[in-house]
Amino acid sequence: MNSGEAFGMLGREAVYRAIFTRRDIRSQFLPEPIEDEVLARLLMAAHHAPSVGYMQPWNFIIIRDMARRRQVRDLFLAARQQELPRIAEERQALYRTLKLEGICESALNLVVTCDRQRSQNSPLGRSHNPQMDLYSTVCAVQNFWLAARAEDIGVGWVSILDREALKRLLDIPEHVEPVAYLCVGPVSAFAAQPELETKGWGKRLPLSDLIMSETYAGAGEHSLKKVADEATNRGAFTAGS
Amino acid sequence: MNSGEAFGMLGREAVYRAIFTRRDIRSQFLPEPIEDEVLARLLMAAHHAPSVGYMQPWNFIIIRDMARRRQVRDLFLAARQQELPRIAEERQALYRTLKLEGICESALNLVVTCDRQRSQNSPLGRSHNPQMDLYSTVCAVQNFWLAARAEDIGVGWVSILDREALKRLLDIPEHVEPVAYLCVGPVSAFAAQPELETKGWGKRLPLSDLIMSETYAGAGEHSLKKVADEATNRGAFTAGS
Repeated sequence: MNSGEAFGMLGREAVYRAIFTRRDIRSQFLPEPIEDEVLARLLMAAHHAPSVGYMQPWNFIIIRDMARRRQVRDLFLAARQQELPRIAEERQALYRTLKLEGICESALNLVVTCDRQRSQNSPLGRSHNPQMDLYSTVCAVQNFWLAARAEDIGVGWVSILDREALKRLLDIPEHVEPVAYLCVGPVSAFAAQPELETKGWGKRLPLSDLIMSETYAGAGEHSLKKVADEATNRGAFTAGS
Repeated sequence: MNSGEAFGMLGREAVYRAIFTRRDIRSQFLPEPIEDEVLARLLMAAHHAPSVGYMQPWNFIIIRDMARRRQVRDLFLAARQQELPRIAEERQALYRTLKLEGICESALNLVVTCDRQRSQNSPLGRSHNPQMDLYSTVCAVQNFWLAARAEDIGVGWVSILDREALKRLLDIPEHVEPVAYLCVGPVSAFAAQPELETKGWGKRLPLSDLIMSETYAGAGEHSLKKVADEATNRGAFTAGS
């Protein structure tokens, strides 16, 4: 395959299908392992993310040990208790019913970290935005997630964790940031809608409301917004392709 | 299409192809427009990124006006001058030869922003990691980038910009963060390798060196690392699929 060759309609549809049917998985993990061949492909997809100044700041910690996972789950439970009072009172009952992690049910856990000192002698592109290395690492997470969808492997991102406690638990040094804690494994299904939508936590915003022209809140782009609304209305962007 | 249906080998290969042949484009932009239908699809791909607590914190500012783009390019030129002294002395000559933006040559520019106050009354998942809204926005950028690759549209991320100056230029309010400044448009080619590799700025690290087991720097995962090395050696992860 020549990388310059046009993509073709079938390939394009597959990429959109991965994007539109990717889900944040918490409840559907199966007690089945992931083959090394598949996991290596997913990690290689992550490793092909764009990175500022080509610094490739990421590492991948694979956690299989169940005792360690239970410790992480305890961190999650404590963090969720701490977060609860910050949620609007009328939504706290709903918040309590949400399943927000699959730490012990998934095939494995994966921590994607960012080494903030990598290539520090030539920080191309990080002088004006020191967060760029973290953003590169997030691009790696999203590559992993989409490749996983294409392998029918589920991924869930657990953000309700005390990062300092997690760093101590995993011996992560000071200069390394744990960017994402992921639960990864085979699943019984990919739901048609995000779970937070099904459960009534939120709705997808209309795309055309998010488009601005030339400046922040700038009106314009009427033709583009019309096309976006029409495509949304005919369901072009849902699970169907 | 049922979203629960297995992906199939051809679809999987297309997703990996988008991931492995995506490039950060600076030099190959063509003086051609993007159709509204294509741009709407790319933005809808971005809008289907995962977001913490389903907050969808992103907005999309489309910049076409050439006078404004020249002002942004001036910001880039000033920022590059400021960054130069931070680059190791023996690499400064190489740094100067790198083309690091396509602001005025691309069909359009796109700023992906993060509204840090959206859903502030129920910050699910942001109590312990206040950066999660920024990370969600980066996931949207990566969705956009991969969908663009599948549409044969090039994308380049310009990180060498003074964000405060950019905010003033685009009337971006205090509570909104410009996460990514992207140059977007049809291109003449997607290079086989990242430009920073071809030009000798850096090399791709061996994946197996980045894999850790159970804790940071933890040894183990020998079987997985062997599979990753073998696949790398037979070129399974390069432009060819």
